[in-house]
Amino acid sequence: MAFRSKLKIRFGDIDRAGIVYYPRFLHYFHVALEEFFAAELGVEYHTLIDTHRIGLPTVHLESDFSRPFSYGDNIEVEVRVLKVGGTSITFGYRAFKEGDAVARIVGHNVTVCLDMDRFQKIQPPQWLRQLFEKQLDLMGNK
Amino acid sequence: MAFRSKLKIRFGDIDRAGIVYYPRFLHYFHVALEEFFAAELGVEYHTLIDTHRIGLPTVHLESDFSRPFSYGDNIEVEVRVLKVGGTSITFGYRAFKEGDAVARIVGHNVTVCLDMDRFQKIQPPQWLRQLFEKQLDLMGNK
Amino acid sequence: MAFRSKLKIRFGDIDRAGIVYYPRFLHYFHVALEEFFAAELGVEYHTLIDTHRIGLPTVHLESDFSRPFSYGDNIEVEVRVLKVGGTSITFGYRAFKEGDAVARIVGHNVTVCLDMDRFQKIQPPQWLRQLFEKQLDLMGNK
Amino acid sequence: MAFRSKLKIRFGDIDRAGIVYYPRFLHYFHVALEEFFAAELGVEYHTLIDTHRIGLPTVHLESDFSRPFSYGDNIEVEVRVLKVGGTSITFGYRAFKEGDAVARIVGHNVTVCLDMDRFQKIQPPQWLRQLFEKQLDLMGNK
Repeated sequence: MAFRSKLKIRFGDIDRAGIVYYPRFLHYFHVALEEFFAAELGVEYHTLIDTHRIGLPTVHLESDFSRPFSYGDNIEVEVRVLKVGGTSITFGYRAFKEGDAVARIVGHNVTVCLDMDRFQKIQPPQWLRQLFEKQLDLMGNK
Repeated sequence: MAFRSKLKIRFGDIDRAGIVYYPRFLHYFHVALEEFFAAELGVEYHTLIDTHRIGLPTVHLESDFSRPFSYGDNIEVEVRVLKVGGTSITFGYRAFKEGDAVARIVGHNVTVCLDMDRFQKIQPPQWLRQLFEKQLDLMGNK
Repeated sequence: MAFRSKLKIRFGDIDRAGIVYYPRFLHYFHVALEEFFAAELGVEYHTLIDTHRIGLPTVHLESDFSRPFSYGDNIEVEVRVLKVGGTSITFGYRAFKEGDAVARIVGHNVTVCLDMDRFQKIQPPQWLRQLFEKQLDLMGNK
Repeated sequence: MAFRSKLKIRFGDIDRAGIVYYPRFLHYFHVALEEFFAAELGVEYHTLIDTHRIGLPTVHLESDFSRPFSYGDNIEVEVRVLKVGGTSITFGYRAFKEGDAVARIVGHNVTVCLDMDRFQKIQPPQWLRQLFEKQLDLMGNK
């Protein structure tokens, strides 16, 4: 089963309409990605920047929202590696209300691998590419 | 020319990589939408919910990011009505660094019209549909 | 020992100066308060509003920051009930870097008990007052 | 009259209780401070860090909230220089609902002047000290 990060919706994440302010989901997805790096890749996300000087800025994102989340809901965010390109990595996200079988949000982000010192697009170093590709294998969608 | 909301990137909007944290752009787009309602439709966005009991939750979003924004950049967010469906309204967004001819972010959000009391999808009331359709006409993309 | 909520500093919580944007700590404190309610009082914070129609808006806050937090730090936020007044409850907060003996932030918030339907200050209902007072007892600072 | 920054409360700034989530006010205060630097001191806040390598982290903050703000309210945040110490600068903030004579929030932040390259407390450079002291004079509270 794909990695899931368990998050709680917070008092301050709710908007004037009484549901989660949708830009917050993109934040939740990033939080889940940070957890995914530590738990599945064995790399603390902050070392990616601080030690390896690699950034992963988003160049394309897409999400479908079928049902809203409310305050008090527990949320599980699934993270997958969907594709490893020359300089790009695509992450897939699905957000479930805890206990639900059907996702309420399905999305993906295309990121590019960036040399943080020169702020230029690069191919991910071999050790990082292998970590991503291993995830593709594990999920049988290489 | 389409409506543009002038925003400033704030100290707290920058992430660990030194550029704007991308979920913030979805927030900027919503801020620009609130300004668009007041300036172009003549409806304060908060009255939509408070007075008319109508919500516009996002059901689909999509964005392409070609260049990052840094702290100190001034940003202009263009808002357009791209499509008025039966119960949906699609808003288009483009984000420019002030003075640039080429947008750095291009995106759109599909929203649905919601009866906030019953939390059910509805057709927008006639007065609101007309306001949206007038925007389509003005922009010659009906 | 007083309750502590373990939080992680997120990529998006860092500001242009490379440290946690200080308004985020007030958010962390609220997140820790929500955890405190569930873990120590046995009341999910969202039911306070949704079921009991009670709010706890802040009327006074004060914090001292002695050392900053960086991305990658794990943070523990301690929550205490410091005082139960007629209509007010004062919560104390201390933020530690995981493993540190000395807190980096020490603060407190005075909140008032609010009837959410009439938006008026009230005395907390007896069951809630008892839960707060039990915390005072436990911490030997009644 | 002291400098005021006009801000709008945004859809996403409202919490589950229907009022502005109070950590957002600390963000509003910082936004107003950024505007104050540009408008009154003639220094863009981002150049402070990017060009002059000076940071102003908060070491103490204090705020009193007497009435809440709702979505749709326009807010004016007044910024004053209250004190210039050896290495510290204290900024005073008051938040008004537009048109009100009485502030709804009154607070202040003590900041210290930091050399961003060595991350050490310093005396503000003479040009910056003079700008702050001129504000004290203008406000007759030196």
